[in-house]
Amino acid sequence: MTDIDAATHARIVDQLNHSSVATLTHWLNGRGYRNAFMPGLACVRPDLRMAGRARTMRLVPIRPDLSDLFLSRDENPHRKAVEHIGEGEVLVIDAHGNAEGGILGDIMTARLKARGAGGLVVDGCLRDVWQIKPLDLPVYTRHINAAAIQRALSAVEMDGIVACAGVGVRPGDYIVGDPDGVVVIPAPLAAEAAAYGAEHEDLEVFLREKVQAGASLAEAYPPNEAVKAEYEALKKERAQPS
Amino acid sequence: MTDIDAATHARIVDQLNHSSVATLTHWLNGRGYRNAFMPGLACVRPDLRMAGRARTMRLVPIRPDLSDLFLSRDENPHRKAVEHIGEGEVLVIDAHGNAEGGILGDIMTARLKARGAGGLVVDGCLRDVWQIKPLDLPVYTRHINAAAIQRALSAVEMDGIVACAGVGVRPGDYIVGDPDGVVVIPAPLAAEAAAYGAEHEDLEVFLREKVQAGASLAEAYPPNEAVKAEYEALKKERAQPS
Amino acid sequence: MTDIDAATHARIVDQLNHSSVATLTHWLNGRGYRNAFMPGLACVRPDLRMAGRARTMRLVPIRPDLSDLFLSRDENPHRKAVEHIGEGEVLVIDAHGNAEGGILGDIMTARLKARGAGGLVVDGCLRDVWQIKPLDLPVYTRHINAAAIQRALSAVEMDGIVACAGVGVRPGDYIVGDPDGVVVIPAPLAAEAAAYGAEHEDLEVFLREKVQAGASLAEAYPPNEAVKAEYEALKKERAQPS
Amino acid sequence: MTDIDAATHARIVDQLNHSSVATLTHWLNGRGYRNAFMPGLACVRPDLRMAGRARTMRLVPIRPDLSDLFLSRDENPHRKAVEHIGEGEVLVIDAHGNAEGGILGDIMTARLKARGAGGLVVDGCLRDVWQIKPLDLPVYTRHINAAAIQRALSAVEMDGIVACAGVGVRPGDYIVGDPDGVVVIPAPLAAEAAAYGAEHEDLEVFLREKVQAGASLAEAYPPNEAVKAEYEALKKERAQPS
Amino acid sequence: MTDIDAATHARIVDQLNHSSVATLTHWLNGRGYRNAFMPGLACVRPDLRMAGRARTMRLVPIRPDLSDLFLSRDENPHRKAVEHIGEGEVLVIDAHGNAEGGILGDIMTARLKARGAGGLVVDGCLRDVWQIKPLDLPVYTRHINAAAIQRALSAVEMDGIVACAGVGVRPGDYIVGDPDGVVVIPAPLAAEAAAYGAEHEDLEVFLREKVQAGASLAEAYPPNEAVKAEYEALKKERAQPS
Amino acid sequence: MTDIDAATHARIVDQLNHSSVATLTHWLNGRGYRNAFMPGLACVRPDLRMAGRARTMRLVPIRPDLSDLFLSRDENPHRKAVEHIGEGEVLVIDAHGNAEGGILGDIMTARLKARGAGGLVVDGCLRDVWQIKPLDLPVYTRHINAAAIQRALSAVEMDGIVACAGVGVRPGDYIVGDPDGVVVIPAPLAAEAAAYGAEHEDLEVFLREKVQAGASLAEAYPPNEAVKAEYEALKKERAQPS
Repeated sequence: MTDIDAATHARIVDQLNHSSVATLTHWLNGRGYRNAFMPGLACVRPDLRMAGRARTMRLVPIRPDLSDLFLSRDENPHRKAVEHIGEGEVLVIDAHGNAEGGILGDIMTARLKARGAGGLVVDGCLRDVWQIKPLDLPVYTRHINAAAIQRALSAVEMDGIVACAGVGVRPGDYIVGDPDGVVVIPAPLAAEAAAYGAEHEDLEVFLREKVQAGASLAEAYPPNEAVKAEYEALKKERAQPS
Repeated sequence: MTDIDAATHARIVDQLNHSSVATLTHWLNGRGYRNAFMPGLACVRPDLRMAGRARTMRLVPIRPDLSDLFLSRDENPHRKAVEHIGEGEVLVIDAHGNAEGGILGDIMTARLKARGAGGLVVDGCLRDVWQIKPLDLPVYTRHINAAAIQRALSAVEMDGIVACAGVGVRPGDYIVGDPDGVVVIPAPLAAEAAAYGAEHEDLEVFLREKVQAGASLAEAYPPNEAVKAEYEALKKERAQPS
Repeated sequence: MTDIDAATHARIVDQLNHSSVATLTHWLNGRGYRNAFMPGLACVRPDLRMAGRARTMRLVPIRPDLSDLFLSRDENPHRKAVEHIGEGEVLVIDAHGNAEGGILGDIMTARLKARGAGGLVVDGCLRDVWQIKPLDLPVYTRHINAAAIQRALSAVEMDGIVACAGVGVRPGDYIVGDPDGVVVIPAPLAAEAAAYGAEHEDLEVFLREKVQAGASLAEAYPPNEAVKAEYEALKKERAQPS
Repeated sequence: MTDIDAATHARIVDQLNHSSVATLTHWLNGRGYRNAFMPGLACVRPDLRMAGRARTMRLVPIRPDLSDLFLSRDENPHRKAVEHIGEGEVLVIDAHGNAEGGILGDIMTARLKARGAGGLVVDGCLRDVWQIKPLDLPVYTRHINAAAIQRALSAVEMDGIVACAGVGVRPGDYIVGDPDGVVVIPAPLAAEAAAYGAEHEDLEVFLREKVQAGASLAEAYPPNEAVKAEYEALKKERAQPS
Repeated sequence: MTDIDAATHARIVDQLNHSSVATLTHWLNGRGYRNAFMPGLACVRPDLRMAGRARTMRLVPIRPDLSDLFLSRDENPHRKAVEHIGEGEVLVIDAHGNAEGGILGDIMTARLKARGAGGLVVDGCLRDVWQIKPLDLPVYTRHINAAAIQRALSAVEMDGIVACAGVGVRPGDYIVGDPDGVVVIPAPLAAEAAAYGAEHEDLEVFLREKVQAGASLAEAYPPNEAVKAEYEALKKERAQPS
Repeated sequence: MTDIDAATHARIVDQLNHSSVATLTHWLNGRGYRNAFMPGLACVRPDLRMAGRARTMRLVPIRPDLSDLFLSRDENPHRKAVEHIGEGEVLVIDAHGNAEGGILGDIMTARLKARGAGGLVVDGCLRDVWQIKPLDLPVYTRHINAAAIQRALSAVEMDGIVACAGVGVRPGDYIVGDPDGVVVIPAPLAAEAAAYGAEHEDLEVFLREKVQAGASLAEAYPPNEAVKAEYEALKKERAQPS
């Protein structure tokens, strides 16, 4: 997990919280990261933004002998990943899109929240979603299934590289969510992506307002040199002490 | 349809209304009922709980000669099932997940409500969903399709055993719904399931509050003997006249 | 595109705004238009009704040499269709249900709204949906994908006949949306459909109220001669100057 | 099950064995039977034609208490349907397209064959397909799954009306299969359909040979009056004693 | 449709007939054509290779008024595309993957063959597939459905740009098929792709034989300088007059 | 990977080669291994049986920075897994069912065969399938896609626990294939499963012949005591020196 100092991390998270997933996805595509967005996940709390570094958990379809892999219940990656999440981290769960059992319910998710987790992304199912909703945690899930995980899946690994909703995820990646869905940013690109995202979001607001005021696409989007200059002037003006 | 006396039924319904679908599904799994939850249904009214006994209707893809099966329009199981629903009963419709025509619209559903139905579960489509929403009836459906049933399906049976969203349903089963979805409880197990569900829900609230207050999974979930004792003590205390 | 004079058009739109998609779909089925409803689209703004004439755009999976088809960026049907939408018109986009890139984002959609568009129907993906939602435009889409169109699709035609969500659409068709979804009405049938729809909706309200007041299906639905007479009498009464 | 005398039945079966499923499907569509073909089934033995009357079996997802429905194992519709199949009859199995357990294996299918069954159509799974293949029975199935039925499904009814692969099926219907798939013909229409099918197949061979010899579509297909006269003349000629 | 002289065309076709679809797809990917292969099509005649230039037909879901688009039956793109196919050309049909009706049956396909068509690619259904198989035409289709097109689709355009099985296709593209499936090569790239494909195929045979004789991947694949030199030497040797 | 001595292993493989996948799946279900069969895989060589111990490879969706995980090309699990396969081992590939790029082509697969591999199971795509077919290796794959892996997936692990086609797989498991598909047997259960499978297969042949000779299900299947005794007697007789 690439090391990033606390101040840089704080700035990245702040900027990502002011970037849209669409803008970040487009920027990553230009860098050759063509599969950065996770399609098909439901956004449980569209009113919350998510931005934090990835921790991962990987599950495979259950078989009785997988239970002998771990010395104790608390060693099981299913519990361990929840219990070891750090402040602001996002738990990313690879369950191959399995639709047959809820991987986390309200109590496990409440524990994530209590430990300060920044979010939860599940390529599988949650249960107790109506009791998860009030926890004020950004949550994205592929399915809901009230059956418990024991009939369907077994956790086999924590903090490995995983596949989640069509995207490869490495621990330490920045995971960003808005109501469009979730995008994955490799840690070494995060500072640049975040700076671009926040700046671009500001420009987009400016352009959208121009368009809403009547500007045609030819006049405003994508912005030509004149529009860009106008935007730069406005920024300078806003930066002036009044 | 297993006979259950009115007082027992009332207590079961009351307890089921205080149980989560996740808890009931888990309990049933432990009894060998592995397919008790219906995945993939949309919950039209997440603000309403559903708990009542099943009545069923079965449809097959339409063919012109199926209309000669019934003596009169009112003998058609499609109308008959709606018209014969009893107080608190839940109509469960097996349409094989058909996506091509709305089985009930707003007027038929309003009739269900007027007769006191406790809910509606459709493994197929509804139409007029926006006018069904205000009826204050718990409704779960696989799809929405504004086309009328006449182009797609024909009802052939009422109150038979059906398959609905991957679960076998017998008339008289208890059907319970919350925002996670719908679970099916065989009548002979209902009293025990309901008692467990309500009790367990109370315990879950206690545990969730512990976790939200900072307890780790090892300390609180699943509850060890000390935690269980604490819960029992709290219950006793609450039961005291103040 | 069938010519319809302004007064007729205004009346049609007004009546369609008082018709349900379910009623219109059923009426079209009776005229031999069996595939008139578009199943599987999400309704982004269930609080808004949509009724307007269709403009179309067709896209195919991207390949680098498709960019040489158009003289300039503004000639590209992707921009042209947005920039040429007329007052009250509905843009219908055929992207074969592609799930891999957002065809329009918030700025392009804001331009549609600024030009007075009556709605947007996408058999593919949108991006920036959370910023599209506040634009007060009726929008229906199959998917959301934050990735930009450039990695997935290329527009090749504007105002041709298209396939959208399983329905053939000709420019000039009336496109009507409510929370059930979207229905397509051929222009030559629109006046008759709209008149029927508005009238029938009024009757449905009358019948639903009867049913909610306790009438059985046999007494009220579908309406027999007595009920129809009662409705006619009520209409006459309402039409009286008070 | 509509009564048809033995001689008529024999002639129908003979003619259906000389009709293509495509021709029969088209003829039924013209009679208002729009869903007569079963899409999505694999043809296990493309070298065999199938034509016989339907017997049906219906299954629902398993639950432990369904086993109390029948007095003895041999009363279970799963075994009874196999054991009661008649000479030339086709067993049609409604399992909702379930993909999780093989409904019949090689021994049950061998028993069908030994009793003289005319075919097997499964909207679900078979197992032991490689040992079923050599049995010389026309078989159509949606899936293959080596797991046994006990983990997935329970038979609840024999000889009821069922839904199979999108088509409503009544016991006694004629079920016809060729490598395109399976079509369902209501018994009262069978004599007419079979006569048309066999006659039309003969005409199609004539037309295909014309086209293969160089005739354009305008000259040969669909046949104009001259081509029809030519065909009639040829038939007369063939009918001459030589 | 890019002009290519007859001799060049003949050489391209010959080389493509000695190239694998896998090799061509990989080469196109390197040129930025990332969606060149059509996944999900069944190969009806795995014993035949296909290589020819594309003609296209586009269909949309049927509606009764689409029949008024064409002056006569023979003007309908459905018949016209078949009747105007040229020697060696491949008919590519865009039907959005529709599964509900067979677009061509045996007689229309026999006409394609009689006119010298080089192949048929259908993003939809065929019917009469068992009678199409003996026609010795390379055919690829997404589905089989014995129902005739009249209940499902209407052709609206011939020789436009289409989408077929996830690939954009322009008339005149080279369409190549082997048992893996179908790949689309833009005409301006065809000569280079074909030359590469044939050469590479020869090298692959050489490498496969080396591997089958015991060479490790490190020794043989991808080929290092020594292996390439060995191959060049072998080629020179084979080119010697004996 | 559980240690099993060579003689035992040889006997297990021999017995598994005489067991049907259906029988083994059923036996495992009885031991609580409910997800042992892999549904949905195509059998490329139905004429070959497969039985061997699992080696595994895991891939995730491609991203450019995954290439920095390995020191050299030959360290990449994609090549390493092929190059390190042992005599009789079956390579099991977890690609989450990805449909976008062929993980192995003919040369890599030829190398597997040259190293003595016992089979190949791919929960993803192969390419060059027509050139893989003649290699005389048992191969099962979910899809075919002629595009190369580089555009879609990156291998991240060799010989870890994986999920393949809905089944959890540990290195060293016995992987058995017949035309029904593939089943996974945990190593500690393999000797018992294999002995049961071979014995049961022999009994099944006996029972099938009885049924084909006219025995009813009640008389022969499942076998009652008399039938079992008859079978035991026959076995004893066959065991006699003649």
